[in-house]
Amino acid sequence: MDLSLNTATVRKQWNLAQIIDGCARHGIRGISPWRDQVAAMGLREAAKAIRAHGFTVTGLCRGGFFTAKDWRDDNRRAIEEAHELRAACLVLVVGGLPAGSKDLCGARKQVRDGIAVILPEARKAGVPLAIEPLHPMQAAERACINTLEQALDICDELGDGIGVACDVYHVWWDPKLEQQVRRAGKKRLLAYHICDWLVPTRDLLNDRGMMGDGVIDLPTIRRWVEATGYAGFQEVEIFSEHDWWKRDPDEVLEVCKERAG
Amino acid sequence: MDLSLNTATVRKQWNLAQIIDGCARHGIRGISPWRDQVAAMGLREAAKAIRAHGFTVTGLCRGGFFTAKDWRDDNRRAIEEAHELRAACLVLVVGGLPAGSKDLCGARKQVRDGIAVILPEARKAGVPLAIEPLHPMQAAERACINTLEQALDICDELGDGIGVACDVYHVWWDPKLEQQVRRAGKKRLLAYHICDWLVPTRDLLNDRGMMGDGVIDLPTIRRWVEATGYAGFQEVEIFSEHDWWKRDPDEVLEVCKERAG
Repeated sequence: MDLSLNTATVRKQWNLAQIIDGCARHGIRGISPWRDQVAAMGLREAAKAIRAHGFTVTGLCRGGFFTAKDWRDDNRRAIEEAHELRAACLVLVVGGLPAGSKDLCGARKQVRDGIAVILPEARKAGVPLAIEPLHPMQAAERACINTLEQALDICDELGDGIGVACDVYHVWWDPKLEQQVRRAGKKRLLAYHICDWLVPTRDLLNDRGMMGDGVIDLPTIRRWVEATGYAGFQEVEIFSEHDWWKRDPDEVLEVCKERAG
Repeated sequence: MDLSLNTATVRKQWNLAQIIDGCARHGIRGISPWRDQVAAMGLREAAKAIRAHGFTVTGLCRGGFFTAKDWRDDNRRAIEEAHELRAACLVLVVGGLPAGSKDLCGARKQVRDGIAVILPEARKAGVPLAIEPLHPMQAAERACINTLEQALDICDELGDGIGVACDVYHVWWDPKLEQQVRRAGKKRLLAYHICDWLVPTRDLLNDRGMMGDGVIDLPTIRRWVEATGYAGFQEVEIFSEHDWWKRDPDEVLEVCKERAG
């Protein structure tokens, strides 16, 4: 599998222009930028630079947050940006509980309904939507879709133009992972993200590990993904307050390449 | 539902003898002690004191850790202690990955096989085993059984004398929670633990909230549990390094009673 860099991995050290240059320098041919970084560089400028290098945009991070107030406009803009960047998908981090609410079932309905609203626009723009189930520890704050099974149930209900982003960090623990990756198949499996689960994990959000430094059986999960016929990239996405965000980003990219295998 | 106190809730302030006195003073009629506290007090002494007050022992914490070396002897002792204490169940925290291993599927097989080995002994002693699925964030370190569905699959395979401990902290996020509580039914639902999920959560193990301070929809989950015909206690279990373990334990017990509803 070819390697893609999710730009969050070195976001503390480099801006998007520097990340694009860095990927080119290290021979990394896929990139998945975050929208705030794209906005800071300028959408056209970013699209132009990425295209000039011939990179594949393996995803745009992110649309979603359907339980927040401005979800409609924000997702419309995200779709336009993904289109402009020729992103393979728009990753949806769907949002958690609305402020002050404990109604998780209601939040999940709201998310499903929100996706249903933006899906026709995404289809029209030729932008596949990739629901990213987040680890259950982020159910309240970031995403109330927490398993591949739950995400795929929504995909099956909504039809074409939608699938899942499978990030090992969020799903490695799932007893139904193999079964649900198989269920997703090539059609629904729109992105594959890698990193590692550290023991101990010191922070619920920003303590991800580099591949090999934790306990995720990456070769096995990769085998399951490849068995679907998935022909995309493996995208490294590491949030790491204590470690990788503090290192020389050229070193980070070197290690990503070595460890991605 | 009557209230039970899991002794971990005030373990930093009181020893077991003090906790037993505290429960009596506050009119709490159920108790679920941890084995190290029982050992410190002495098993017979603890059993005698608990019986003298007429408390129900809603569970003994804990057996399990089938991926550790001494699991066989340790679980045998745990069953004997649960019998001596007349515990309604022995709670199983099943263990995570063996040291140095990334083989989660293998660990899960090991756990299933370990439970199968001790189950006949538990049946003979009249001690129901309660598998406690732990939150997926604890899959590596403490328990590789992470959903009620997964736990109930094992119960169905192994037959009588085994069920689940449903702790809202571990399962509140699960999209299949209502369905799986119903599936468990009165027969398999051996314990019901309450606390709350704080936003933000600062620690993966010891930052649980008091009921009402977090985002778990406790009345809804309780309704699902009661709909099964569950006639047991609701057991408060709060690990709280930053807050409740620092307070006057009499205050903690008062608040538990108020908030349990």
